[in-house]
Amino acid sequence: MLPAVRADEARDREQPRVVIVGAGFGGLRAARELAAAPVRVTLVDQRNYHLFQPLLYQVATSMLPPESIAYPVRTILRRQENLEFRLARVESVDFDKRELSTSEGAIGYDFLVLAVGGRTNFFGLESVAQHGFGLKDLDEAVNIRNQILRSFELALQEPNAERRRAHLTFVVVGGGPTGVESAGALSELVRVVLAKDFPTLEIKDVRVVLLEATHSLLSALPEKLREATAQRLWKKYVEVRFGAQVIEYDGERVCLAGGEVIPARTLIWAAGARAAGIVEQLGLPLGPQGRVRIRDTLQVPGHDEVFAIGDAAVLVLDGQPLPMMAPVAMQQGLAAARNIARAIEGAPLEPFVYRNPGSLSTIGRNAAVAQLGRFAFTGFFAWLLWLAVHIAQLIGFRNKLLVLIEWAWSYFTYERAVRLITADQVRKRD
Amino acid sequence: MLPAVRADEARDREQPRVVIVGAGFGGLRAARELAAAPVRVTLVDQRNYHLFQPLLYQVATSMLPPESIAYPVRTILRRQENLEFRLARVESVDFDKRELSTSEGAIGYDFLVLAVGGRTNFFGLESVAQHGFGLKDLDEAVNIRNQILRSFELALQEPNAERRRAHLTFVVVGGGPTGVESAGALSELVRVVLAKDFPTLEIKDVRVVLLEATHSLLSALPEKLREATAQRLWKKYVEVRFGAQVIEYDGERVCLAGGEVIPARTLIWAAGARAAGIVEQLGLPLGPQGRVRIRDTLQVPGHDEVFAIGDAAVLVLDGQPLPMMAPVAMQQGLAAARNIARAIEGAPLEPFVYRNPGSLSTIGRNAAVAQLGRFAFTGFFAWLLWLAVHIAQLIGFRNKLLVLIEWAWSYFTYERAVRLITADQVRKRD
Repeated sequence: MLPAVRADEARDREQPRVVIVGAGFGGLRAARELAAAPVRVTLVDQRNYHLFQPLLYQVATSMLPPESIAYPVRTILRRQENLEFRLARVESVDFDKRELSTSEGAIGYDFLVLAVGGRTNFFGLESVAQHGFGLKDLDEAVNIRNQILRSFELALQEPNAERRRAHLTFVVVGGGPTGVESAGALSELVRVVLAKDFPTLEIKDVRVVLLEATHSLLSALPEKLREATAQRLWKKYVEVRFGAQVIEYDGERVCLAGGEVIPARTLIWAAGARAAGIVEQLGLPLGPQGRVRIRDTLQVPGHDEVFAIGDAAVLVLDGQPLPMMAPVAMQQGLAAARNIARAIEGAPLEPFVYRNPGSLSTIGRNAAVAQLGRFAFTGFFAWLLWLAVHIAQLIGFRNKLLVLIEWAWSYFTYERAVRLITADQVRKRD
Repeated sequence: MLPAVRADEARDREQPRVVIVGAGFGGLRAARELAAAPVRVTLVDQRNYHLFQPLLYQVATSMLPPESIAYPVRTILRRQENLEFRLARVESVDFDKRELSTSEGAIGYDFLVLAVGGRTNFFGLESVAQHGFGLKDLDEAVNIRNQILRSFELALQEPNAERRRAHLTFVVVGGGPTGVESAGALSELVRVVLAKDFPTLEIKDVRVVLLEATHSLLSALPEKLREATAQRLWKKYVEVRFGAQVIEYDGERVCLAGGEVIPARTLIWAAGARAAGIVEQLGLPLGPQGRVRIRDTLQVPGHDEVFAIGDAAVLVLDGQPLPMMAPVAMQQGLAAARNIARAIEGAPLEPFVYRNPGSLSTIGRNAAVAQLGRFAFTGFFAWLLWLAVHIAQLIGFRNKLLVLIEWAWSYFTYERAVRLITADQVRKRD
């Protein structure tokens, strides 16, 4: 009676079903790339938004509201007709049955892309995991913001000088991009804004301490930039400490290997990442940081129809494991989608080639370090470049505009707008 | 040795100390009015921000991010030299010793202004308090937003038609301004935005039901406007039900007096307010809604140095208790501050006179009802007036600009930006 519709339905049923788990940089790129492919795509995530992780530290330091760096997945993919989004938490995968078990029921697949991302790596330090703050998702960023602002309020009302100083000591652990950017932004927040809000507090009681276990910051950068970074941070009153390895933290005292103790009520742990928890439970061969070992086609060994990408996977190229960074995830998302299309056509899959787009880190107002191919530079121009690149990468005109306004407003007024102590978010670790 | 400083200190010690509890509309106005008075002012609040409550329903319906209607108290009052802010929760008041007991220690006063505001009034309906959503603070608004968006996600994955419809039935209780504005905004969110995000859901399965126990909405307005309001809501697909009294809600079924049962997974309770919980514990004479009975000078009977204002207090003028609304609180804040100044000068206190500024409620896009003195009107011009008045009242240029941008963006794109399901806020009731 309605042959046209029936033919459509039949075709839909015949098309292979690609399930992508995770709507981060990698999963989203893979989903978009499959828009024109003869497949049905199901994107599964336990959150309904895509998070622009590189700016999380600005949420943690009162610069940006959380909503400005998150974007609803359904809106991003609204026009993609071969895609459906499912809000669900993946609990396990039956690789033989080719089926995911999720909080909202089972989902079968013909091809699976595991793009579940990473989480904070506490390296087994239980006390740090319990009392320190990670910075991998929006809830954690808001909790850090609350903690920083609350520390100042408590310090103001604390008559004991020792305890007051402990409230005002902020320890950031890890000299990678997240640690460097967080420490710089936090020190600016304190010196530029909170000093005005709390005129009766001694600003010299406030310490921002950046602890790095090795002997350099931003170790992926050339020597010149690493030095410039440390100097810039020091000028912004961040105490940069090298060879400092945290072994314990009880919420009041940071204990370092070697016996040093730093009384501090706030510890932000930016010292490492590992694959999301679900990865461990899949029974797949794991590499460093709990990441799934993959072939150069991004396939999981023994499961040709399963691809793993981004922070959840590790590919060793030229003897080096690829880093857990957005550019890797995005390029792998694209590559996995194309290999799936090739597999459907019966064409041979192609190995993944990584093109390093360079590195950009900001250290606060007017200061950044940049490495683009052979060019390495620092200062105001690097900072402008950092701004432009990050605005360009944000999804959606509204988010671009709002972030631009917040940045311009902060820049010219020396204010940080989002100094609200809201309800603490329920902390979930996955 | 340093006589100038010592004279200052001596003068400071001599100046009477005015403690204001609550940084809402009333407390803030009182604090500002005392800027030039010969007093030391301590403002105490358990939150570090002032909340623009009239727009809370827009946070609950994904229109505005929470940060755009909250403003840090310290920033508002940064230039007021005779004021200090304390982040603390008041636990009790010793009226004989003239001392507050707070979560952060004792605070003595010479004059006290109780401006602690109101909370949701569930009229003793325990099951509704447990399973329904109030809409009095930022956390509750975010929780409602999460609940609405999550309901759609769950409905999409629910095979059972009855249960799916229950996920998509949103019951708003109370035909006052909050209930009317929430129901209108919620219905727009569903029809204009979510219908696009969930193309496979039947939009006719979605119900927004507004339950009012009496026989009119916005009972303070003239008959003509009440009728227009109900008609407007109906045209926006809100089922307006009069004479509907909720007696129980278990999270799945709303039970009305008379036996009707409405299966609904979301109930927003906007049917009443009462004074904040701390008011009950003070041992003061209470009037309707648990509010402190006050004299026409705003003083608490028997305690000439204690003033109570806003939602926390009730003053009967011309046989009518003044309503729990922002204009009352603001005018009383001003009046209390002036009476304190008079008391210090030894001048006689003056009775409070309320000037009704009129009433403005929006029912969504292009629609509002307005009453200003003798003028009562509805439609597009009322809506523009509503926009202008609310933008003007927001504190801070940044918040004004951001809200304006969000509104313009929503208006022209038919989108709602903040469709994020974030971590549920820890619900606190006080």
